Amino acid sequence: MQLKTIYELIEEDLTEVGGQFKLLINDKDNTFPELRRMLSQILITGKIVRPALTLLAGKFYDYNFEKLLPMATASELLHIATLVHDDAIDKSSIRRGRPTINKIWGIDKAIILGDYLFAKAGESAAATGNLRVVRLFAQTLETISKGELKQSFSAFNSEQTFDQYLQRISGKTASLFAMAAESGAVLSKAPEESVQILKRYGFNLGIAFQIIDDVLDFVGVEEEMGKPVGSDLVQGTITLPSLMLLELYPKDNPVKRQFQNEGNKQENITEAIELVVNSGIVDKCYRIALDYCTRARQGFERLPNNSSRQALLKLTEYVVERKK
Amino acid sequence: MQLKTIYELIEEDLTEVGGQFKLLINDKDNTFPELRRMLSQILITGKIVRPALTLLAGKFYDYNFEKLLPMATASELLHIATLVHDDAIDKSSIRRGRPTINKIWGIDKAIILGDYLFAKAGESAAATGNLRVVRLFAQTLETISKGELKQSFSAFNSEQTFDQYLQRISGKTASLFAMAAESGAVLSKAPEESVQILKRYGFNLGIAFQIIDDVLDFVGVEEEMGKPVGSDLVQGTITLPSLMLLELYPKDNPVKRQFQNEGNKQENITEAIELVVNSGIVDKCYRIALDYCTRARQGFERLPNNSSRQALLKLTEYVVERKK
Repeated sequence: MQLKTIYELIEEDLTEVGGQFKLLINDKDNTFPELRRMLSQILITGKIVRPALTLLAGKFYDYNFEKLLPMATASELLHIATLVHDDAIDKSSIRRGRPTINKIWGIDKAIILGDYLFAKAGESAAATGNLRVVRLFAQTLETISKGELKQSFSAFNSEQTFDQYLQRISGKTASLFAMAAESGAVLSKAPEESVQILKRYGFNLGIAFQIIDDVLDFVGVEEEMGKPVGSDLVQGTITLPSLMLLELYPKDNPVKRQFQNEGNKQENITEAIELVVNSGIVDKCYRIALDYCTRARQGFERLPNNSSRQALLKLTEYVVERKK
Repeated sequence: MQLKTIYELIEEDLTEVGGQFKLLINDKDNTFPELRRMLSQILITGKIVRPALTLLAGKFYDYNFEKLLPMATASELLHIATLVHDDAIDKSSIRRGRPTINKIWGIDKAIILGDYLFAKAGESAAATGNLRVVRLFAQTLETISKGELKQSFSAFNSEQTFDQYLQRISGKTASLFAMAAESGAVLSKAPEESVQILKRYGFNLGIAFQIIDDVLDFVGVEEEMGKPVGSDLVQGTITLPSLMLLELYPKDNPVKRQFQNEGNKQENITEAIELVVNSGIVDKCYRIALDYCTRARQGFERLPNNSSRQALLKLTEYVVERKK
């Protein structure tokens, strides 16, 4: 399953999001050289799942590209802004195969650039002229930052439950996927029932996406992912694979040792990765992710049967098949 | 000139901004204990000039408190959010006489709390239901972060001009004052001419306010200000007094030494403060600030002559008289 195939229906319009990024990078009247250098470093399009969700969710009723484009752009800008702050907090050096803002310019400038990107995302959301969508945007930033704050307060704590994990990834990932889909539906004047189906789709797809992300942090190939493997354990973040590992081996456990600052760090992580791969945990995680994909598809039979519906269904297959 | 006297007209309504803060701190359904502790540490009302501007600017036409209250709250929340990030960047320990968020919880949590406060401020602005005001809010955050970024890129650079200084304080302070006043006018359905008069008022008042802030960083009394004196020089930030000092003594200069990491830091700062106090620079800065107050009052005769107009005029006297 290739993303390119799934995006076929919106391919041209999706390119316009990259076009919006170029406008921001080249906006000489409202920026200055150092800011433009930072923007051209960070405003590259990755999987652009979030803008794709907005556009595809907007394809069921009144496809209004003039409103959908700024919102699709806002979804990706909001995502990138949170990544800039995340990387600053985690002191990450690499993202999408490129050095991070904090790596090149330092944490201080990363904080301010993130704020700038929040502002541009907010302006883009406001450019839809739709107050419901603007409110949704602000609420989503609230939810994301609460999720990040919770994650930060629970770092290096190995006493966590599956529910707490779910709550955290709901906040930091699923809420933004839900916003992307819901806003697309709202802006295309979808009836409320369809808005709710697409919102739920986005939310559950986001959960599945994040679970796979967390699995790939154990079993992914560094070169493909563009960031180092095992980084969650280094940051002290418990994810689904490490939760299961703690449950499977409650007494002696490399995750526990790592969180209690015992043993050799690199060895702990290598051991944790080996255990996750050889214990059936990966399969279990995939089954849970697939379950969330099933939930994502709930109610889809009540949406107009068109090629956008097909694309969104295929996307639920892609998120669990992807290798990066 | 007491702030209390100036605020008399809006005293009760202004208290409601504090009430909104209390609601945020006590919102158990949407927060968690650590977040509430952080909020109660930071959501204290200081001079609340920005909310006062929104309310006073809203008193000329259709005073709509239901819309003005969320916007007044948004102005102060946006201000506090930027302070949280500023303090994290500057590694400041004290603000308004209390330990900063980064001092108590560390820089990582300060970054995320700032993001959370931006979100709450955005939600508050959106609660006005007025798209023009929402756009203005997002544009202001853009302007502020660009101002901060410029300041950060020019830190420890003693080759700066008065124009560059003005541009920076326009971005980081005056833009928010302008937003506070403009939004009050817009929400009370002021005619466009009055909106522009009040916006210009806010902008110029903000410039005067920041110039005095920068002077107080040299000549203020630490106990009154609730933050240490000389902190701009420590951060490598050129302000109007140090700009004038560089002009007056272009060869040997404690500011230059400090920025080039020469000599004893504490001695450089003490010497710079002494020179500023004894060279007439303080008076010159006050004259420039007073000039901006005059500009702030321009066109006021075309506003309805009421007690709000009187209060705003008195506020231009207060900002240059204040000792903290």
